[in-house]
Formats: sequence, C-alpha cells, structure tokens
Amino acid sequence: MARVPASRLPQHPLIVTAEEDRVRHARGQSFPDWLAMRSGDFEFFPDGVAYPETSAQVRELLAFAVQHDFIVIPYGGGTSVAGHITPQKSTKAILTVDMGRMNQLMDLNEESQIATFGAGTPGPQVEAQLQARGYTLGHYPQSWELSTVGGWIASRSSGQQSLRYGRIEQMFAGGRMETLQGTLDIPSIPASSAGPDIREVTMGTEGRMGIFTEVKVRVQRAPEEEKFMVCFMPDWQAGKTVAREVAQQRIPLSMMRVSNAKETRAHANLGTSLKQFKLLDGYLRFRGLDDNRCMLTFGVTGSKYQNKVALKQLKKILKKHGGVGGALANIMGTIWAHGRFKFPYLRETTWAQGIAVDTLETSTDWGNVDEQMSQMETTLENALKDDGEEVMVFTHLSHIYGQGASIYTTYFFRCADSYEATLERWKKLKSKTCEVIAQGRATISHQHGVGRDHALYMPVEKGELGMRVIKTLVKDFDPEKRLNPGVLLQDTP
Amino acid sequence: MARVPASRLPQHPLIVTAEEDRVRHARGQSFPDWLAMRSGDFEFFPDGVAYPETSAQVRELLAFAVQHDFIVIPYGGGTSVAGHITPQKSTKAILTVDMGRMNQLMDLNEESQIATFGAGTPGPQVEAQLQARGYTLGHYPQSWELSTVGGWIASRSSGQQSLRYGRIEQMFAGGRMETLQGTLDIPSIPASSAGPDIREVTMGTEGRMGIFTEVKVRVQRAPEEEKFMVCFMPDWQAGKTVAREVAQQRIPLSMMRVSNAKETRAHANLGTSLKQFKLLDGYLRFRGLDDNRCMLTFGVTGSKYQNKVALKQLKKILKKHGGVGGALANIMGTIWAHGRFKFPYLRETTWAQGIAVDTLETSTDWGNVDEQMSQMETTLENALKDDGEEVMVFTHLSHIYGQGASIYTTYFFRCADSYEATLERWKKLKSKTCEVIAQGRATISHQHGVGRDHALYMPVEKGELGMRVIKTLVKDFDPEKRLNPGVLLQDTP
Repeated sequence: MARVPASRLPQHPLIVTAEEDRVRHARGQSFPDWLAMRSGDFEFFPDGVAYPETSAQVRELLAFAVQHDFIVIPYGGGTSVAGHITPQKSTKAILTVDMGRMNQLMDLNEESQIATFGAGTPGPQVEAQLQARGYTLGHYPQSWELSTVGGWIASRSSGQQSLRYGRIEQMFAGGRMETLQGTLDIPSIPASSAGPDIREVTMGTEGRMGIFTEVKVRVQRAPEEEKFMVCFMPDWQAGKTVAREVAQQRIPLSMMRVSNAKETRAHANLGTSLKQFKLLDGYLRFRGLDDNRCMLTFGVTGSKYQNKVALKQLKKILKKHGGVGGALANIMGTIWAHGRFKFPYLRETTWAQGIAVDTLETSTDWGNVDEQMSQMETTLENALKDDGEEVMVFTHLSHIYGQGASIYTTYFFRCADSYEATLERWKKLKSKTCEVIAQGRATISHQHGVGRDHALYMPVEKGELGMRVIKTLVKDFDPEKRLNPGVLLQDTP
Repeated sequence: MARVPASRLPQHPLIVTAEEDRVRHARGQSFPDWLAMRSGDFEFFPDGVAYPETSAQVRELLAFAVQHDFIVIPYGGGTSVAGHITPQKSTKAILTVDMGRMNQLMDLNEESQIATFGAGTPGPQVEAQLQARGYTLGHYPQSWELSTVGGWIASRSSGQQSLRYGRIEQMFAGGRMETLQGTLDIPSIPASSAGPDIREVTMGTEGRMGIFTEVKVRVQRAPEEEKFMVCFMPDWQAGKTVAREVAQQRIPLSMMRVSNAKETRAHANLGTSLKQFKLLDGYLRFRGLDDNRCMLTFGVTGSKYQNKVALKQLKKILKKHGGVGGALANIMGTIWAHGRFKFPYLRETTWAQGIAVDTLETSTDWGNVDEQMSQMETTLENALKDDGEEVMVFTHLSHIYGQGASIYTTYFFRCADSYEATLERWKKLKSKTCEVIAQGRATISHQHGVGRDHALYMPVEKGELGMRVIKTLVKDFDPEKRLNPGVLLQDTP
C-alpha cells in the first residue's frame, strides 16, 4: 500500500481517495493485471473512485471532470481481460467511476418483455431479480459472476447460450448514456428503418462516448427446461461440420461448443479422475473413436417440447457424422454446467505448479476456421522457441453462427524466474498471435472487446475509413479525451 | 417531355442527359410521386443519369462530382415511398447514379453461406441467381420486384418473411461503399466485439455517406417446403395475443400478420367474389365469429419436419385463443401468397373509381400497440373532417418481434377536383398522422426509411444527441453536402 501515490483529485463528496478503493480499481483480470496483482507492482492507480447511485450523480461527476480537467474511467465488474479499466501514466488525475451501486431492476414490462436495469447490475443480480418475476435475460459470459449489464453493452459481450438468447446486441433495447455533451436517450423500439441505429453506434464504445447508467434489455420467460450434454465425434472435421449444420439448419439448441482433439484429450485428463478417464477412454475406443476424437458440448433451453424436437433434429446430424454419446453424455454435460464459470480460477491452480495459462479468441467465416485455428495454435506453440520453452495449446469453437464460428484458444507456458520475465513471455505469445489474427479474415475479438491491449490491431480490421468513423464519433463527443483515453483507439490524453 | 429543362451537367462518357432517362429517374413510388407522374408535373429532374458497371466507375463519378461541384443521388430500383431519390430545387446540377447494371452474383461461398452481389441487383435477380445454386436470401419486401439489395441495405428494409430470415440488418454481412473520402471496405465477420459495428453505422444512411457498390449477404439453403395459411380469431385482442405469444415463445414461423376487424372485413369484400364471401361469412358465423373477427395470415418455411412442429406449436396457441381455421385456411393462404407483391398496383384500380389510397407504418412495443394503432386510425379518419370528407382506414400488424410489432395502416380518401387539391388532402393526412407517430413511443418508419418525407420527424425519435451522431458522421464523410442532401436530415445543399 505504501506505493500508492497521493491523490491528485480535488475533493468532492462523491469521490473516495482511500488507498484500498484505489488499489481495488487499479486492474482488471487480464494476465498482466493478474501478474501485477500477485507481484504488487500495479504501476498506476486511479486517483480516486466514485460510486454514483443515480444518473444525476454521473452527470455531476462528468461536469466536475470538465471543471477540473481530469480523466474518467467507467468501471463495471472489473473483469476486463483487455485493459479496459487500467489507468495509464498521465499528467492528469484519473477518476474511476464504479457503477456497482446502480444495480437494481428499475422496471419490468411483462407485455413487451423489456427490463430496465441500473447499468452496474452484475450477472447474478440481473438473473435473481428477473427470475423472482419468472423471467430471464439468459446472458452468461464466463465473467458472469462479476461483470455488469452496462459493461456487457459497452464492450459487446457474448454469453455461453448465445445460440438461443443472442449476443448482447440482440438484447440491448435502448437506455441512457451520460456523455460530456449531455444525456443520450437511446430510443427503445422493436425494429426501425429510421436511419442508423443509435444503439449500435453506442455498443462497443467502451466508455469513450459516455457512461451507460440505465439500460433496457429484452428478456424472456424463464425456460421450462434446460439441459447440457456432451458427445464425441470421430475427428475435428466431423465436429466442425455438425456445428456448422446445426447453425445453418437453425436447429434451436441454446449452445454448442466443439473442442479440438487436443482440447478433448486435455479435458479428459483435467476434468476426470484416472479411473473415470480410463472408463470413458475404453468405451470410446470400443466405439471406434481414437485419439482424434473431438468433444461436442451442447445445450437445449426452452419448453420441453421445443427441446425434444431440437434434440431429435440434432441426433440425425450427429448420427450422420459418426457421433457417440450414450449414458455418459448427460453426466458430462452436467459437469460442464457446474464448471461453466470456473475456468478463470484455473489460473491459480496451475500457477502453484509453475505454469501460466491464458486464452485468445476471435471469430471468422466457416471457410476460414481451420486455417485461422491452425495459424493461432502454431504461432503459440512456436512463440517461445527462442527461449527453449514449449507451449501447450488447445482450442474450441465457443459460439456458432450460420456464417462462421468463434475460435477460443487456451495456452499454457512455464513461468519464468521473475514476474517481469514471465510477463515478457506472455507479451511475445500475445503479440505474435494477435498479429496472426489481425492478418487473417478474423476479428481481433469476438467477445472480450478492444480495451488497450487490442487497440493496436483495430486499424487492420476496420480499415482506414472504418477507423475514421469511430474516431470522428469519439472526437465529437469527447474532444478533450477525458473519457477512457487509450482504450479502443491508440491515443493518449 | 417539353418541360424537361436543359441539363446543367458537364459532359462525361458515363453520363446520359437524354430526356427519357431524366424523366424515368425523377420520381419514386410515393403517393406524391405517383400524382406527379400522372399529372405530368414532375417539378424537378436530375440533370443526367449514369449507369456505372463497376466500383471504379462509381469512384470516377464521385470524383467528377467534386471536380464540377454537382449533387449525386444514388438510385436502386426507384421504389422509394419516402422521397429518397427525388431531386429538389437546387442551384447545383444533379446526377442520379442508377446502380442497375451492377446486378450480378459475383461470388457464393457455400461453406460460409455468404453471397456477394452487385448492389444494384433487384429482388428477382437476387433470388434467381441464388436459387440456381440451391440457395435463397429470403428477403421479400412488397417492392421486391424492383427494389435492389443495395437499396435494402441503404434504407434498412424488412421483408415479409422476416420472422424466419430477419431484417436486412441480419443479412448484410459487409461489403464496399464508395464515399467522397475513398472506399469504405466493411469487414465481413460472423460476430465481433471489436468496437462499434461499421455495418450498422452504414445501414440506413440512405446515400448520405456513400454509395454501396458490392455487398455481401448471409444466404441459406433454399427451404424444402413453404406454406402460407390463414385463420380467424374472435377479436383483435385474441389476434394480437397470438402474434405476441408466437414471437415471445419463438415458434419458428416465417411470417405472421394480424389484420384488425376493419381490415378483415375489407379483405373479405375486396379479395373474394360475393358468393365466396357469403360462404366464408356463413361458416365463420356458424363457428361463432361475428364482425369483430380478425384475420391471421401466417407462413412456415423450412424443412418439412420443422414446419410440422412449428404448426403444431402454433395450433395450441390458436386453440387457446379461439382461432378458427379449417379447410379454407390453406386456400386463402395461397391467395395471399399470389397477391403478396400486388398491393402497390391497387392504387390504379381505386383511382379509376375516384379513390386515392396510401399506407403509413411504424413499429412499437406490444404494450403500446393498441394505443398507437388507435391514434393513427382516429387521426386519419378525422383528418379531412374540415373538408367534409370521410377517410376509410384499416390496419394490420405486419412484422412481429418479442418486444413489439410493426403497425401498417391503409387509408382511402376521395380524389379532389385537381391533382393539386388531392395532394393537399394527402399532405394533411400524412403530416397529422406522422405527428402522432413521432409523439408516440414509436418509430417514424419500420420499413420504408426516412427519405425527405420523414426527415422532419427524426429529431423527436432520435433526440438531440442521437441526431448529433448522424449529423457528425454525414458531415465528416460529405462536408459539402454533395450526396443526397435533404434526405435523412433536413438540410439543403
């Protein structure tokens, strides 16, 4: 705590400058953030934290920022893995605005199925407040336990059951954003051809245009039934083809995930006891599936009848491509469901064994999935060759669409002797692979957002005029670069 | 033809200044356009028309416009009903760029189900070229016979089977827009969290940002089966509730339309012979449905199995709310399918009897549908009271969503003694009702776009900062107001 410098912010009744608040808001959940927190070397801290309870208080804080020329970082659940909320070195003071006290269901229109939430409401409170009334939003990113509805919208998040519920883009219906130019009231209309969609312009602005304070989302009746299952395909091509056919034939599953052979082997080793593994392995070999086998994880969510007909259609496709399920399928699906938000905690476990772990993700067209995955895996595997270090890599497709899929790659490498040296290894892995993503016909992020860590790669993806669109908007709403500078665009205050 | 003034455009090998070309591109298909064409009083004409065949030629035309300081109007099928392509009085010369020669399927990636089209490809050519390969886009607005894929994107169009295929927003995957600042290459990615979506920023810009030249759209395998059917509900509340439950329970129909009681009566009178009408009326009365009955039109599109289970789920809902179908249902559904693009021609038929007809449309939340429909109908019915004229009005919900529905109102009024006086009557009807839409929690257009006719109402819907977003973008891409000025925004060159 001794290293937290004195706050440079002027006094204000809404601003807290206690060290603990500043330390707690200094970092997100990226690998460098996590290293920083372990090592105690946070680099930079916000000069203070505010916890507004109303839109009016957010406006007041923004006006105070203009008056005293300081920087504002909007903060949801602090789960960013791309540096969205990390203060950078700056001659100006930095205020983090933590939206966590705006966490209530403010209105639920049951006829139109629209819920209005305070933007700082985290996943569990979103669902608890809705489910008490018989409704669900159905948005379950891996960060769900902490991340907030406003954060999901600001960074264009996607949940694990997006096959049924859609991405946050399909859920966000409108609401209120406080900007330096005033309040942006985003109209909530089912569908419109009245010019560009303002919802879509604000989603993904990552705090650069303003701060979401109240948001309307499209909700649904809580489903009658939800089930997760697992089955195994003979090889990657079969698994990928099943996923593509499910999406393109619109089989109404709520999720489908395809692990490649390496991930399938790793999961079998990590997720089960030796006895269980041998039992499963023996059964699958008996059914003709060797080490090339790939695991499919899938779920149905809806009425019992809808789930039944969805599974019936799926089974036809699985059979055609040689899928093997059986009695184990339901048990393993249940295991997945129990562990679905646990992956981020794996970092602690492997660290104790001297192993670092992180993930990279993108999405691309079906026709490019193999090439993109192969390039990402090969790049990671070879990235530390010069250091004589091996990297263990595996991948799954986490979200599927008619056009393509998201690619989610996990990699493990040995920790170096110091935090600094471990961070250097990570930087090599990250930058080499991001370069490969940017140069492919893929996006620099399917679900994590841009933040500071991906801003460098945006121009390749969006093109010169695409970047001009974003820069023009940000500049018009925040000409002095007061809101989250360095995020989304590579600029500094 | 004598009234077409001399062209003010400089000579260019791509520009045609023949009177016939200029007359043919002077007007769209709105009621005033149609009056102008009948009366021969076109008011203004483009000074010339170009028919580019490549993106390079579009760039050349835009550069020529800058060089010689003239205005450019992008033109697709000329089916605008909101004044998108109508030249206004201007001291500058006006060039209409007709995209009709860029009408080819340039590429079809069957694995990723992405088709690339010249932006000027009209509906029938889109489908013919795709269906020859076993695919479909499935976008069928009423203007389908003439309107183009680029026009659909530029004006955020919606097709009749949007319940299955989605709006054009769900189909448009990326492509190329030629702007005054260069070529905007819009990346085609299945889904992304990399900042604001450039596709979404360009859709609905109605030619103000640039001209789409090549567009990628998400296509599907041609369906195994498609059926349209009709049934009758006891009253409006029952019909509306069925539609809401279908959307909110995600019953996979491809379309559902709910006619109110007035439209149901009118359709029965207009669409059938007296003998057929008496037969149907007698049967429905026997089944307990009186003059309050409402017609539901619906369709299924997909595999035979998917259609069967969709109809099974629908039937349960219909039964719960007192629906009556029977043997007539399939026959009447087939009649609807045959006449689905015919409505625009009705104008000619009624005109011969001294009756003018036009439509108005919006969309709003389920909780506001009744109020909005009632206000629109009452406003139209009373709008010509001062002139002692009655207006006949009826309505249907044309597109349904979980959140709400589109409201599509048709109105008939007597022609006055002169074109001018008839136009005055129309202006009263249009402006009074648009005011009621703008003041409701509804959009000024669900599917027709903004054009010149709705620009006045945009600020109420989008708000001051919402308008600022649009103005900032347009100004940045076209600071001299060269591209379609007066459209989308109320500005003049």
